[in-house]
Parts: sequence; C-alpha cells; structure tokens
Amino acid sequence: MKVNQLISEIKEKKSFLCVGLDTDISKLPDGISKNTQGILDFNKAIIEATKDYAVSYKLNTAFYEQLGSEGWKTLEKTRELIPNNILSIADAKRGDIGNTSSMYARAFFETMNFDAVTVAPYMGLDSVEPFLKFDQKITIVLGLTSNKGSIDFQTNPLYDPPLYKTVLKQVSSWGPMENLMFVVGATKAAALKEIRQIVPNHFLLIPGVGAQGGSAVEVCQNGKNQNGGLLINSSRSIIYASNGKDFAEAARQKAKELAKETEPYTLHL
Amino acid sequence: MKVNQLISEIKEKKSFLCVGLDTDISKLPDGISKNTQGILDFNKAIIEATKDYAVSYKLNTAFYEQLGSEGWKTLEKTRELIPNNILSIADAKRGDIGNTSSMYARAFFETMNFDAVTVAPYMGLDSVEPFLKFDQKITIVLGLTSNKGSIDFQTNPLYDPPLYKTVLKQVSSWGPMENLMFVVGATKAAALKEIRQIVPNHFLLIPGVGAQGGSAVEVCQNGKNQNGGLLINSSRSIIYASNGKDFAEAARQKAKELAKETEPYTLHL
Repeated sequence: MKVNQLISEIKEKKSFLCVGLDTDISKLPDGISKNTQGILDFNKAIIEATKDYAVSYKLNTAFYEQLGSEGWKTLEKTRELIPNNILSIADAKRGDIGNTSSMYARAFFETMNFDAVTVAPYMGLDSVEPFLKFDQKITIVLGLTSNKGSIDFQTNPLYDPPLYKTVLKQVSSWGPMENLMFVVGATKAAALKEIRQIVPNHFLLIPGVGAQGGSAVEVCQNGKNQNGGLLINSSRSIIYASNGKDFAEAARQKAKELAKETEPYTLHL
Repeated sequence: MKVNQLISEIKEKKSFLCVGLDTDISKLPDGISKNTQGILDFNKAIIEATKDYAVSYKLNTAFYEQLGSEGWKTLEKTRELIPNNILSIADAKRGDIGNTSSMYARAFFETMNFDAVTVAPYMGLDSVEPFLKFDQKITIVLGLTSNKGSIDFQTNPLYDPPLYKTVLKQVSSWGPMENLMFVVGATKAAALKEIRQIVPNHFLLIPGVGAQGGSAVEVCQNGKNQNGGLLINSSRSIIYASNGKDFAEAARQKAKELAKETEPYTLHL
C-alpha cells in the first residue's frame, strides 16, 4: 500500500484515525481469555468494530514481544486480520547498521507484509536507507516524540537548531513523501507549525492523543497539509473504551467520535 | 549476571571477546540444514567451540526476526544454550515511551532471560529508565556507532559538543557502571581516549572489529580502564571462519586468535 491509497482512504472515510492495537493481556475485557488467543480474538473484534473509521492500524511490537515467540505469532496473525485497504503499521522503532537494517526491513515488509514500519534515526542514513529501498512500502522515522524524555536529546537546549529539526531536515532529503513519514507527538502540537516549514509535504504519524493528553483538533489546526498529511493515533482510549462485554461497541463509538472530531479537516482535500 | 561476574570471567579467560551469533541461513556451512533447526544446530556448535574464549555472546535480533515467529523461537532457544557464566546480550536497539519500554525490558530480561540488552537513546530518559530498573541486568545504550551513518547525527559538525558526547555524558548519569554500558564502534578507536574522559568507569561494548575494519589492539590501547571495561565483539570473522564441515573448529581457532591478540591487556586487572 502506498501513500496515494492512504489519501483516498482518508477522503472516503473523512478520518485521520489510526487505531493502536497495543493489546495488553492484563487489560483484556470480561469474557475474553487471558492468553495469546484472547489477544487475537480481541484484536479481531476491535478491527471489525472500528474499520469504518480507521484509515490505519498500528501494532506496537513491544506488546507482543513481551509474550515471547507466542506473542510474535500473535503479531503475525493480527497483521493478517487487517483489511488490505487500511494501512498496517509495525511500530517497531528499529534501526541498525546497513546490512542489519536490511534484515529488519525484510522482517516487517516481507515476512510479515506490513505496509509501514517505524524507524529510529540515531544511527543515520545507512540505518534508514534499507527500509526506504522498499519503495512500495512506507518508512516512518522518529522526529519529535510525545514523551517527556524528548527533552533530553531531541529538544536539548544545548543545540540550536534542536536535534529533531536536524533529523527532520536531513531525513526528509533521503526519501519522498510517497514512502517516507515522520513521527511527531501530539503533545507537541504547538511545534507542528514550525515542523510543517521543514517537512511541508510528508505525512506525520501523530501518537499521544487521548491517554497522553494531546488534542486532535490542535494537531489538525497546526499540522494539516494539502493532502491531509496526518495519521492521528489513538490506542488505549479506543481499545479499552469499556472493559465489559460491550468493549467492541464502545470501541466503535469512541473511534467514530474521534474521527468526527477531526472530520472538518478532511473535507476539501 | 552482573558486571562483577563479567570482570571475573575476563580475568579468568584473559579475554574481552564477545561472539556475535548473527546467524544467517544463507551463510550456513555445508552439512547444516538451511532452516531454523539448522541455525540452532549451528549456534550450538559455535557456542560449544568458542566458550573457552568468549566472555559474552551477542544475538542481533534482526537476524532472527527476519524469519518470523519461527526465528523468534530460535532466538529463545539459542539464549537457553548460552552458559550461565557467560554474559548473554540481546542486541535489539529498542527504545520507546516509558510504559512501552517497560514491555521491551520484560521481553528481554524476563521472558527470554537475557543478561543484557542494547537500547537506542533518541527518546531520552523515560525510554531508557525501564531497562535500568532491572538492577540485576545490564542496559547497553548506543553511544558512537561503527557505521558510516554515525556522521549524520552522532558526529554532525553542526553540534559542538557532538551529540554522542552529550548522550554519553547524560546517560552515564542515569545509571552506575554495575548495570549500564555503552556501545562504541571499533572503527572509531581514535575517539576512545576522549570517550574515556566522559565515561571512565562504564564498560564499552565494541562492535566493528574484523569484517567492519576496526583493530582490537587499538581499542585496548585507547579504551581499557582499571576493570578492563571492554567487550570486543566479532561476529562474521568467527562464525563464518570456514564454510566447510570444519566450521566449528575454525571458529574456535579464530576466537582463540582474537582473544590472544588482546590478552596482554587483560593481565594485571
């Protein structure tokens, strides 16, 4: 899947919503087995319930890796449940020396057939390039993250321009908007206007709305571009909208609500 | 396993050698099946052949992930083959927001029982801290990496002091040498003297000797401290020393040779 198809999907569904399938056994609702089969059943129900509003699903690999090879199998099986018209993202934050990054790229783009994968920039060009070589896939590089620790290096006042701006500027010269995106935390919505001056065209994957406190409307006001250019991720507030037997219906309602919140910004794209 | 035990092991074996089990199906020698069982048989033979000289084994997760959940299972089974007195490292370069990094820490330290894991610093304190909380385990943070792309951000001339020095300085204040180490590429041996001024006590994991061109002797001359303070990794030059039926014996010879090269620097510790 390529960015053009994602843009069509955004227009059709009038939604920037990316649903994070960060599924934790200890938070599974009543009536779902507390094991990897339960995670799969839960993910299936959530996908089914939210697919009319979601233009993307994002799976954070940590949630699956903590369960060992059984968890990894659950990650693979969940990937297979995501409909082809909806962008599948492995939120893996990988990155290594060139020949090793090639293997990560194969792991996510070929072995598991994800449409996109998140990548950490610290190791530079040859750690990112093997992902970009898959020109029918999408590489999403960390720019400015949503967590407190982003101050330690990304916005460390020791550096002017701040590191994240150098990352955005440099990495955006390595790939076109057709197969390169950036992660920018919603908790940094005020920075989005400046970020759009550095990367006017690339899509931004925006985590941090909901549980982490970011505002989706502010993200749209400051971050939207002519193609939309946004994927707004929400995980916990959707998938754990209810911990009762109505969890899927509650997730659907919450997804609808979040999509509606930003619908005005998807019109006239 | 803690750093004190590693120091004892270095003294006893007179070796800083870390053997990288970066096993690639396409490079398995004659007589070994070209599947995940073959990888496991190969890893077992390499561990058996090199354990008298190795003070650590490092498994780069990319090599296993590219094979999907079967590969992940092979990673788990290989971990179990590493003797308890030898430091096991998952070279995973993980890092995410706090609650997600906690899951990665559990994945490697608990589910798979690795002694150590490599972590990427870009996301700052709350992405590293969940690993450091395992005070009986070792967190190894990327400092200055061995690849060309290290120039893009780590040593970008735009920043003075260079980013990697800020990373070393800041991260070293987050944890003691007992459970925190840094990755510094052997291809950057000249930088090691300056690095030792920033982190005099912490151990350094040094990849890049052999196939990548770094010199183990130069690493010792510039990087050794009062505890040794070095783990010198070699992967391809050991595990693929021969692609014939004598691969294990050839690996043993190469491991012995590499250990002997730096033996003088392990005396009087």
